[in-house]
Amino acid sequence: MHEEEGACHGLRVHYQLIDLDRSGRGVEALPTLLDAARVMGFSGLNITFPCKQAVIPLLDDLSADARAMGAVNTVVNDGGRLVGHNTDGSGWRWGFTRALPQADLSCVVLLGAGGAGSAIAHALLGMGCERLVLVDHEAARARALATELGRLHGTTRVVSADHPASVIAAATGLVHATPTGMDKLPGLPLPAELLHPRLWVAEIVYFPLETALLKAARAIGCATVDGGTMAVGQAVDAFGLFTGRTADPQRMQAHFRLLLQTRVD
Amino acid sequence: MHEEEGACHGLRVHYQLIDLDRSGRGVEALPTLLDAARVMGFSGLNITFPCKQAVIPLLDDLSADARAMGAVNTVVNDGGRLVGHNTDGSGWRWGFTRALPQADLSCVVLLGAGGAGSAIAHALLGMGCERLVLVDHEAARARALATELGRLHGTTRVVSADHPASVIAAATGLVHATPTGMDKLPGLPLPAELLHPRLWVAEIVYFPLETALLKAARAIGCATVDGGTMAVGQAVDAFGLFTGRTADPQRMQAHFRLLLQTRVD
Repeated sequence: MHEEEGACHGLRVHYQLIDLDRSGRGVEALPTLLDAARVMGFSGLNITFPCKQAVIPLLDDLSADARAMGAVNTVVNDGGRLVGHNTDGSGWRWGFTRALPQADLSCVVLLGAGGAGSAIAHALLGMGCERLVLVDHEAARARALATELGRLHGTTRVVSADHPASVIAAATGLVHATPTGMDKLPGLPLPAELLHPRLWVAEIVYFPLETALLKAARAIGCATVDGGTMAVGQAVDAFGLFTGRTADPQRMQAHFRLLLQTRVD
Repeated sequence: MHEEEGACHGLRVHYQLIDLDRSGRGVEALPTLLDAARVMGFSGLNITFPCKQAVIPLLDDLSADARAMGAVNTVVNDGGRLVGHNTDGSGWRWGFTRALPQADLSCVVLLGAGGAGSAIAHALLGMGCERLVLVDHEAARARALATELGRLHGTTRVVSADHPASVIAAATGLVHATPTGMDKLPGLPLPAELLHPRLWVAEIVYFPLETALLKAARAIGCATVDGGTMAVGQAVDAFGLFTGRTADPQRMQAHFRLLLQTRVD
């Protein structure tokens, strides 16, 4: 996406996959990689699991979003000064607002309190969500995030629940932020019979674009947002940070769909 | 050259300039860069001044050429195992043989006993040069290299001299391996009146392709080889090491000339 969008701006962009698993390394390789990125003159890096927290002590500064979330998914190299940003929330917000501009945010259930869930929770509260219910199969994780967000946004706006069954009937929207439904992890993240047509349903999984959850939701008439929307939103934001140019979202989205079809990484 | 040649082989090649000066770093950054090259999945690296010796202790193995020369200009990443090669000599040999297949190697004067000079000296002796005379403005450097090469190839075949004036009249060929004549360092590396038409003259400088030395040599009818020939030879060899494919020398040469015209780096 970045290379293609760069070419449209007359920029020669190289976007390099750095796969720690493939080289048998872990987060301990981060200091080397970040210093090398400085010397090699990288414009920046995208950071993903499991490095989003571990990268923070290695950076020279953080954006307000990254500081609030305690997680970085984008690093910008400003002449050797590395600044951490987080476009998970802004990317999700951008895509969601574009897909469902009129969505009712009065009561939203968020499944998954990990890194992506946390970023989306911040975004939803920033968008005016009145009541956010966090659910995670690790109940303690949902409670901890609810406590932290309650401190920032008011304890009446954020709660946690141990199971979606008890809360989804009263909800106006459902955000799914766990890996369930990916090609490698097929299935539904909650029983399909809990869904109801007054819910909008937003998905973060995009391999495949139509997950079992989205299929079930569409079958009963829910408004839906697929995971590609967030992925494109993040890339649009990151492209702006890396290059200082404004990406064309339509064009990036079209190219993203093409990449999904061919599964080029 | 590598990107263009790669594209002709259906390969998506990215060749990244890593400029230590520009990032205010020196050879102390090499361990970081080499480890990062492993993790990032680089196919290899070209190594240039002042890192050709300093890189050696950081590698897992050396080719016979690199070991003999004590210098590495090409590193190949073989699944995380970094192997050092030296294509300075083989690249020079390839280009020289192609340009002047019938050159008389009975007595060759080599100006410059640094890294490039050393590689060319090894190549010339491997090609059957009967008498090699090393000259350097640092006379001690020429003597040290002559001693080392004498040990490998016989002391009667390699000698050093303090000035070209005393030896060039009897020579059949002259190789110039110092930076003099580059755009940044214009001029002649020896008095033009020392040249004579029985000499062939080979140049390693290629910014510009026609140096003052080549101009003077051509004016009196010497056969000549320009510096681009060696640069292309090195790149052809390195491309083979990086990709396992055989580069098309004609095509790489044509693209190199194009790059020289536009001075893209």
